[in-house]
Amino acid sequence: MLNNKISPDIEEMGKNAKMAALELKTLSGSARQNILALMPEKLESIKKDLFLANQRDLKKARKAGLSEPFIKRLEITEKIYQYMLNRLKKVASMPDPVDKILEGHTRPDGLQVKKVSVPIGVIGIIYESRPNVTTDAASVCLKSGNAVILRGGSESIETNIVLAEAMIAALEEYNAPKHAIQILRTPGHEAVSELLRMNEYIDVLIPRGGKELIKKIAQGTNIPVIKHYEGICHLYIAKDADLEMAIDVAVNSKCQRVEVCNALETLLIDQKIAPAILPKIVSAFKQNNIKLLGCHETIKLAPSLEHASEEDWMTEYLAPILSIKIVKDIDEAIRHINYYGSGHTDSIITESLALADKFVNCVDSASVLVNASTRLSGGGDYGLGAVVGISTDKLHARGPVGPQELTTYKWIVHGHGHLRN
Amino acid sequence: MLNNKISPDIEEMGKNAKMAALELKTLSGSARQNILALMPEKLESIKKDLFLANQRDLKKARKAGLSEPFIKRLEITEKIYQYMLNRLKKVASMPDPVDKILEGHTRPDGLQVKKVSVPIGVIGIIYESRPNVTTDAASVCLKSGNAVILRGGSESIETNIVLAEAMIAALEEYNAPKHAIQILRTPGHEAVSELLRMNEYIDVLIPRGGKELIKKIAQGTNIPVIKHYEGICHLYIAKDADLEMAIDVAVNSKCQRVEVCNALETLLIDQKIAPAILPKIVSAFKQNNIKLLGCHETIKLAPSLEHASEEDWMTEYLAPILSIKIVKDIDEAIRHINYYGSGHTDSIITESLALADKFVNCVDSASVLVNASTRLSGGGDYGLGAVVGISTDKLHARGPVGPQELTTYKWIVHGHGHLRN
Repeated sequence: MLNNKISPDIEEMGKNAKMAALELKTLSGSARQNILALMPEKLESIKKDLFLANQRDLKKARKAGLSEPFIKRLEITEKIYQYMLNRLKKVASMPDPVDKILEGHTRPDGLQVKKVSVPIGVIGIIYESRPNVTTDAASVCLKSGNAVILRGGSESIETNIVLAEAMIAALEEYNAPKHAIQILRTPGHEAVSELLRMNEYIDVLIPRGGKELIKKIAQGTNIPVIKHYEGICHLYIAKDADLEMAIDVAVNSKCQRVEVCNALETLLIDQKIAPAILPKIVSAFKQNNIKLLGCHETIKLAPSLEHASEEDWMTEYLAPILSIKIVKDIDEAIRHINYYGSGHTDSIITESLALADKFVNCVDSASVLVNASTRLSGGGDYGLGAVVGISTDKLHARGPVGPQELTTYKWIVHGHGHLRN
Repeated sequence: MLNNKISPDIEEMGKNAKMAALELKTLSGSARQNILALMPEKLESIKKDLFLANQRDLKKARKAGLSEPFIKRLEITEKIYQYMLNRLKKVASMPDPVDKILEGHTRPDGLQVKKVSVPIGVIGIIYESRPNVTTDAASVCLKSGNAVILRGGSESIETNIVLAEAMIAALEEYNAPKHAIQILRTPGHEAVSELLRMNEYIDVLIPRGGKELIKKIAQGTNIPVIKHYEGICHLYIAKDADLEMAIDVAVNSKCQRVEVCNALETLLIDQKIAPAILPKIVSAFKQNNIKLLGCHETIKLAPSLEHASEEDWMTEYLAPILSIKIVKDIDEAIRHINYYGSGHTDSIITESLALADKFVNCVDSASVLVNASTRLSGGGDYGLGAVVGISTDKLHARGPVGPQELTTYKWIVHGHGHLRN
């Protein structure tokens, strides 16, 4: 089955996770809820240890000369600590995604057929420095009845161990399998490679981090991967757009927060409305200190802009930079989005039902919005509650990945000695 | 993106498929239905050509000295031809799986959020000799609004081309994109390797064939693969089973058809009921000419049986052979199934609600049955209509893969200038 050897301690983790996943199947939704509800208490009881462990991680990181933004992501501030507690409470209180009857019918001969949501099994989460992913991801996995193996950045290992121990204490208090939450502590890349080879024990991998990390993991494993690639998000201002709404939505999409995956990266403006709206758009963005790049046609109307290169149309800036392109019509807008976009989130501003329908049908993205900010795409605004990320995949989970997306289903059939003729 | 070069004509197919997939999004469900409903007519109009092409394939296969079972699978008999026509009619008449509103709500501020089923995009089907997969798979893909690239066995290439041409004629009659159905004709393994590298154009691969084919494809590509591995199906006769029902279901599960994936391969009998039932079971199977293998305990009670080896518990016989194991209790039965099984279909015979619930919850398989023949698992009996196979994966599609399983979803959001605060 396996391409290569796995060290006994890592294989042991896999076996334990699989066993824990099978045991978790016997826990009710309210048992899982009780465990999750206990976690904030457990986190409060180890608050001092947590901050001390985090200080040790920070000290090591500074000594190693890591960059300030990196160290900032590593740090557990009081605000982040409170966020973690609140998130655990939220996950605990969310409806149970397991054992939902998704479909079902009884055949005329009495055979009862049901399609029921069930946990996936064992989930591997590989992430970079932010320690809050430890509680975020583990809680969503447990909510859905899955066992999880966590592999955080080596820089946050002390913090992560304290967090995991607090969560495991909650499991143990309810006699739930402690191996439902495990941290892979072995340092080095080889340990990750071994994790990627554990097809036999891990059902799905979710890498959280930069594009390169995700790509490397997806290419290095035969385990299914739920990928959270970049968000090259577009807003298309159609020829009949309400000018004021278009400007407000464009500015909100780009400026409300620039470093997130559903922030605007490319603005497409219909050529019929461009002369009227472009000067106002340019001035609104300049007031917000956004650097603007434009296509050839854009620069004809707004000569102060820099030229956007081919590369710009496929760049997720995550920064106060926006590229603007004037398009002939909605067809060119859709073609541009489907070609250069990342299938994450795209929006149109229009008053026309026909244009809205065409955009919604033809743009091949996880979230397609009409007259709304791209920043509104995501788990919270969709009512999904806590999510582990936004999938840019098409299979299994597309868009926000919450507890429901971490379930699969099984077919359950009840008969009375039914046979096949 | 791509690891290696792709020849221009194969890349062209990918581009054309992607373009066709985008065009298909503009077709309504009834347009797709009309095209599918026309296909049987088109197939009737080329019946003579089809049988001639099939004769040429058969002649070549005989000349190449291929085995009789192989040649038999290659042959289009009148019965198979009628089956193909009926299947096309059935797929045409099935409900449309696209544009279903799966979830939705309107927020207090008026933002409307919907989760809607949409086609996946481009599907690659790689299959062995049976030419009916050409019409079966292409029709299910089109039903769900997907473009398909078909790669059948080289031995059936002439037959497949005639079949594809008939289906494409139906597309063209309705001005639908003819590249919605394409056949990869380039001979040789290299062409398949190139197909496996077309991440940019193909959204999912579905291999149909033996375990080795599927494994090779899954390991050789970064495109998601819906895998249809083997069915090592179990029937567990619990201590309180109705004896007569247990024997009937066991015999039906094994004997109704031995060469299919949901046929019984291993019978587990609770030790408490074994002395009472084993002689009757042995005699019933012997009457049906099934060769029986047994564990140590089984052979103590039925000395005429051969010993089952460790290998037997993980073998999909697809033949008139059955291995029998006596287990201590339901826990051992569940452990055996989760360890040796393939997660396809498993059944229990019991009168106890508690045992049935435990079995259904703890057996980690796509289909779990109570008091019913394993042969009842599958698309037809579940009311899914035509399926392209039975997935043994857990992600995206588990169990029967019909038109609905060949869709994904997108989030569609309608606002009136909604912003994120």
